[in-house]
Amino acid sequence: MVVVGSVAYDGVETPHGKVDRMLGGAATYIALSASYFTQPKIVAVVGEDFAAEDYELLQRRGIDLAGLERVPGKTFFWAGVYSADMNDRATLTTELNVFADFNPKLPPSFKECPYLFLGNIQPELQRGVRAQMNGTLRLVGGDTMNYWIGDFREDLLKTIAQWDFLLINDSEARMLSGEHNLRKAADKILDMGPHTLVIKRGEYGAILWRRDWHFMAPGYLLEDVFDPTGAGDCFAGGFMGYLAGQGIDLKSGGADQNELRRAVIFGSVMGSYCCEKFGVERFRTLTRAEIDQRYGEFRQFTAF
Amino acid sequence: MVVVGSVAYDGVETPHGKVDRMLGGAATYIALSASYFTQPKIVAVVGEDFAAEDYELLQRRGIDLAGLERVPGKTFFWAGVYSADMNDRATLTTELNVFADFNPKLPPSFKECPYLFLGNIQPELQRGVRAQMNGTLRLVGGDTMNYWIGDFREDLLKTIAQWDFLLINDSEARMLSGEHNLRKAADKILDMGPHTLVIKRGEYGAILWRRDWHFMAPGYLLEDVFDPTGAGDCFAGGFMGYLAGQGIDLKSGGADQNELRRAVIFGSVMGSYCCEKFGVERFRTLTRAEIDQRYGEFRQFTAF
Repeated sequence: MVVVGSVAYDGVETPHGKVDRMLGGAATYIALSASYFTQPKIVAVVGEDFAAEDYELLQRRGIDLAGLERVPGKTFFWAGVYSADMNDRATLTTELNVFADFNPKLPPSFKECPYLFLGNIQPELQRGVRAQMNGTLRLVGGDTMNYWIGDFREDLLKTIAQWDFLLINDSEARMLSGEHNLRKAADKILDMGPHTLVIKRGEYGAILWRRDWHFMAPGYLLEDVFDPTGAGDCFAGGFMGYLAGQGIDLKSGGADQNELRRAVIFGSVMGSYCCEKFGVERFRTLTRAEIDQRYGEFRQFTAF
Repeated sequence: MVVVGSVAYDGVETPHGKVDRMLGGAATYIALSASYFTQPKIVAVVGEDFAAEDYELLQRRGIDLAGLERVPGKTFFWAGVYSADMNDRATLTTELNVFADFNPKLPPSFKECPYLFLGNIQPELQRGVRAQMNGTLRLVGGDTMNYWIGDFREDLLKTIAQWDFLLINDSEARMLSGEHNLRKAADKILDMGPHTLVIKRGEYGAILWRRDWHFMAPGYLLEDVFDPTGAGDCFAGGFMGYLAGQGIDLKSGGADQNELRRAVIFGSVMGSYCCEKFGVERFRTLTRAEIDQRYGEFRQFTAF
């Protein structure tokens, strides 16, 4: 699967500690998470300061970095601080740096990939990437944020009209649809093009919507949340990574409901592991066996 | 099952409308909800203003009113207004009236009942009711609120030490345990006596905790929430009513995990129906078939 988005450095403060600079960015988290299910191919840009050890971490997870462009300048930097309960965060610094001129170009070897995840970047750029794909896309979708929903609405609507799925959080779903009630919000968003919608609810889990049914997954209850940064992106990576790894073809009409449900659970598992350590730390040791073990726990605490 | 608590009149304003005076009170909602699974017996007090039509509604649902004392004075009255998203409410009026001197006395015919639910009243009174039971209690538990947790803590701890289960919302669980994290909060509360804890999370569902496992139920997604008043009490009524109806004996060690899980789902179903109309209105038409149909929906949108 191809993942387009940011590769960045983050400064993060939570009630459990503070890290001034560590590997981050949506594409980083999505790809690391998806790497347990399939081979992700990153399309992103970094500056001359991007460290060898960070390349190595991504390579060790088998991620294809042919589309990770390195250009003069500094890597995107973001810093933020979380509230005491970690349900809110305030941005302290956003330095776009080389990301300001990011114009994703797909290496030829990426263009026939059947799975495309468009991380949260300008909707016009997301559309441009979609147009570069010249194979048979089985599944294309992605993420967006309040900024694009508010100030680039028409552009965003043109973009998601071409998507199979949209993956956003509850406040974004409400903003995009103009409906507070999630059932009504989902109905309106499914009218915008995507046949599949995933609404993330933070600690309360996620809901997958199709025209005729929905599926609700609770959030995993961690004993300690060290750092929620990247949890939503890890959800996306687990969700899409699982579907890509299974070779799911939603277009063919043979969409297996159960595979979509399992993808939501794997997304939830990956989001939960992400929070157990600062930044991407957990992915240095996480194993597929641990993922499958927690998937089993989800079954245990939801079955009746 | 015996239900002790308030029978009241409520004034409620939500974004969907306003009712100046309607039947309410925790014991009312608990008993109406439980009446679909077992025969509830109410222990409560009302004033001379308690209307014949309200007696009739309770009687039509088969509720035993031998313990519904009628005394000189006016019935407990509460009025409140909900926020636009209905996640918060402000109390406008609380007139305790005859409820101020409520000292629950069980009719002889109630004392050997094996199931006792103690609604949210003074912990000392809850203990007094427990002491009046002289049969073999299979299951005793109940509810409390922030006021008793904050100002009557020692009294409350003595009370719940005698209970099999405690049923409270997430903010109350955090206050009672002094832990923000729900796993840690649950561990501490299970150390206080009850072997079973249910934490209600409003629209996000509920979690049942036992020492070695937990079960998470999502909240049902309604298209329209007309009035959330009583939803938590209807959850309690469905939960306890189902266990009583099934004749579950948690004490004997033969506690069937699956029955507890099903009880949480029936509680969730009853809470969701409660919100569909103002006050107790939905219970005028609700059928057991509708309850079973929604139970099936819960299975559909949680199975994977």
